[in-house]
Amino acid sequence: MNIVIIGGVAAGAKAAAKVKRLLPDSSVKIFTKDSHVSYSSCGLPYYIQGNFTDYKTLLVRSPEEFKASGVDVYLNANVEKILPTQHDILVSHPDRAELVQYDKLIIATGARPVIPNIEGINNFNNIYTVRTIEDGIQIREKMLNSKKAAIIGGGYIGFELLEAFSKNDITTTLIETNNQIISALDEEMSAVILKRFEQIKNKNFEILTGAKISRIEGIGSDAKTITLTDGKTIECDFIAVCAGVKPNSELAKEAGIQIGETGAIKVNKLMRTSIENIYACGDCAEKTHIVSGKKVWIPLGSTANKEGRCAAMNAAGVYCEFEGVLGSMVTRCLNTTVAMTGLTEKEAQSIGFKPVSVVVNKYDKVAYMPETDEITLKIVADKITGLLLGAQAVGSIGADKRVNTVTSGLIGHLTVEQFSRNDLTYSPAYSPTIDPLLNATQILCNKLSRSC
Amino acid sequence: MNIVIIGGVAAGAKAAAKVKRLLPDSSVKIFTKDSHVSYSSCGLPYYIQGNFTDYKTLLVRSPEEFKASGVDVYLNANVEKILPTQHDILVSHPDRAELVQYDKLIIATGARPVIPNIEGINNFNNIYTVRTIEDGIQIREKMLNSKKAAIIGGGYIGFELLEAFSKNDITTTLIETNNQIISALDEEMSAVILKRFEQIKNKNFEILTGAKISRIEGIGSDAKTITLTDGKTIECDFIAVCAGVKPNSELAKEAGIQIGETGAIKVNKLMRTSIENIYACGDCAEKTHIVSGKKVWIPLGSTANKEGRCAAMNAAGVYCEFEGVLGSMVTRCLNTTVAMTGLTEKEAQSIGFKPVSVVVNKYDKVAYMPETDEITLKIVADKITGLLLGAQAVGSIGADKRVNTVTSGLIGHLTVEQFSRNDLTYSPAYSPTIDPLLNATQILCNKLSRSC
Repeated sequence: MNIVIIGGVAAGAKAAAKVKRLLPDSSVKIFTKDSHVSYSSCGLPYYIQGNFTDYKTLLVRSPEEFKASGVDVYLNANVEKILPTQHDILVSHPDRAELVQYDKLIIATGARPVIPNIEGINNFNNIYTVRTIEDGIQIREKMLNSKKAAIIGGGYIGFELLEAFSKNDITTTLIETNNQIISALDEEMSAVILKRFEQIKNKNFEILTGAKISRIEGIGSDAKTITLTDGKTIECDFIAVCAGVKPNSELAKEAGIQIGETGAIKVNKLMRTSIENIYACGDCAEKTHIVSGKKVWIPLGSTANKEGRCAAMNAAGVYCEFEGVLGSMVTRCLNTTVAMTGLTEKEAQSIGFKPVSVVVNKYDKVAYMPETDEITLKIVADKITGLLLGAQAVGSIGADKRVNTVTSGLIGHLTVEQFSRNDLTYSPAYSPTIDPLLNATQILCNKLSRSC
Repeated sequence: MNIVIIGGVAAGAKAAAKVKRLLPDSSVKIFTKDSHVSYSSCGLPYYIQGNFTDYKTLLVRSPEEFKASGVDVYLNANVEKILPTQHDILVSHPDRAELVQYDKLIIATGARPVIPNIEGINNFNNIYTVRTIEDGIQIREKMLNSKKAAIIGGGYIGFELLEAFSKNDITTTLIETNNQIISALDEEMSAVILKRFEQIKNKNFEILTGAKISRIEGIGSDAKTITLTDGKTIECDFIAVCAGVKPNSELAKEAGIQIGETGAIKVNKLMRTSIENIYACGDCAEKTHIVSGKKVWIPLGSTANKEGRCAAMNAAGVYCEFEGVLGSMVTRCLNTTVAMTGLTEKEAQSIGFKPVSVVVNKYDKVAYMPETDEITLKIVADKITGLLLGAQAVGSIGADKRVNTVTSGLIGHLTVEQFSRNDLTYSPAYSPTIDPLLNATQILCNKLSRSC
């Protein structure tokens, strides 16, 4: 059996390792455009920050380790075409091209950064995206020789880079075109982030929301100035573009594989595409949202890992269903943890639920304990069924803990009433006597006029 | 309407506040033997440690605050008898006795420390229990003037006191009669605690398990030496007795109120006792275990709070059910967090389940992050139904987070298979790509021969 995998960061690497374990006698090959394979892309902001100084720390398995386990890795190998009728892919290596035959093909081409349409954005060498190991190495090197940075985009990556730059004493301006940062959050929850940042003393950063960029100008190959449509200018030594990502689904589309409404590759629960013997997984694949049942595209490393495993199992003939995602995520910038799961109120509204919500602001421990911090927690439920729909938390390090407790409630399709009966662990060092989660769900029960 | 509450620490104080809010025109009276009302008993180890220095920090509501809200608090008031046929209680105040009439009576008499039957244990003034504010004040004062301490009992309180004494440079010996500390845990999980303690440099404490005490001896009013049955002697300046608690159910029993098989007061889901118009809540009341359906007695502050609220609602004529507990708990000593929920393997076995379990030992974050620590996680499931039964975690501060994620799964009666599909938040700073929970449940799925 010939198993061919296109892409080798998270989903592709996981799929390769899993399929080789399941079918030790098969031939398993990874082809990737990238110059590295099997690495933690989510760790790039922490490498840039300097939490560790050797980029190799981000590598999960080297090509040599893959080789030793019987998986062949081809780096800098550009897959030009998938030819489903003849079960081949066409690969361009730096020095040659070849047709590679497959019995099962796993597409794990990932996603790529969106480059916003801004005058000057393609004209300079000191404008970076943050996706690959190479990106990380370049941006860290540049940062270490800079004083001022600009970040375009206030999503997760921009948020994490802000911490990285700030902690390296780089004066940073984050420019977000929306009226809020972390736009996945409901508006009032995003506002809590900015309010918490106000408490940071001697801030060396500024966040501009609702800021439209007019142009980027520079001297020679170096961008120097970002000009907003309102005339404001931002001086910088380099620019990180973190304006979102889009799925690398073109290769699949050209091969006649069905693309979903989200723009990512359509797959069923077995991670199979519309063409037999071809699977897709990770950031290039569409997902099902467990709460709404809708197709979504939420590209995250944890999901990529699970999908890679599931695609590999099915490719190897071992039945595996991937049910879908909750859109659970956590990110951190300086004093603030942001986490969410399920649907936000605006999402719930837009897809036809009748959401009811509550926001509570509570200490994360009993107030008399040292290093107590606040958590702002929002819980969203459906008025008709009383079902939990989602949770968002902004605040102390314990924010993600509350959100993970809700994930199990969403997986179990619990009502707010059922959830409010939860028996959570309590000790003054870990939570208030009534945890913010129970506080919030009790209030929500009252709003839903249920006895909790 | 006259509402009378016996006891005023957690359940009683909560019940009083709640019932007064629901029935503002009623008379609400708290009678308590204690010289304080409405305080965080769980916070005593942290007061002793010196996390805060004013014991008043532990007080939630003062008698004056209660008075202002229309609740009368009688301190040092010993309720001698409940007289259900005449709807009275007989109260001894320091200076007088009285009969107090009630329409609804809420019993929240709590629990008291067990004093083990050890020769000499009642003969000295420097042997303390840790239950009331007075206890806390005395033990802190003694600790500040001591060099060596002994703790009898390695349950939660003993565990937390060990941290308090150790951090105050008191050389401490903890003596546990069982072969493991935190005996609620399965044996191999308790062993992880001791293994973690081995990593602490320059330890100023020793833990003796399986240690039977023969006698306590001293000079004058001061205990000085604990002698074990094997002849070993422990010198100390004072002794903390943390050998568990028992329910204060005698008053109820004498009044003809039914006592459960656990020795605590039997109540239904409305927190009503066997006698009409009499409710019981908090540490004196029996609980139902949500996973096993069995009656249990697991006295915890978080439960007391919820039960007090529920008893108050029903006493006030507002329907409220308290479903029961999962036995969720968290405690900390120095470098180690211990948390659990649901049934342990030994419990599950003893009540007729066919438990299957898995223990994983994993980092709490991606290994390249700073301050990464380990978590040992045990998940227990039922072989017949595949249902989750419980979880135990020992390790880093993130241990309780994993356990709380399981509580929702237990409330929702999820199978391991369902739970293994959980979409947990992921970022290198918060968890490994595959969280220990997912890792453990995947392995457990395989053990259960289910496709996960």
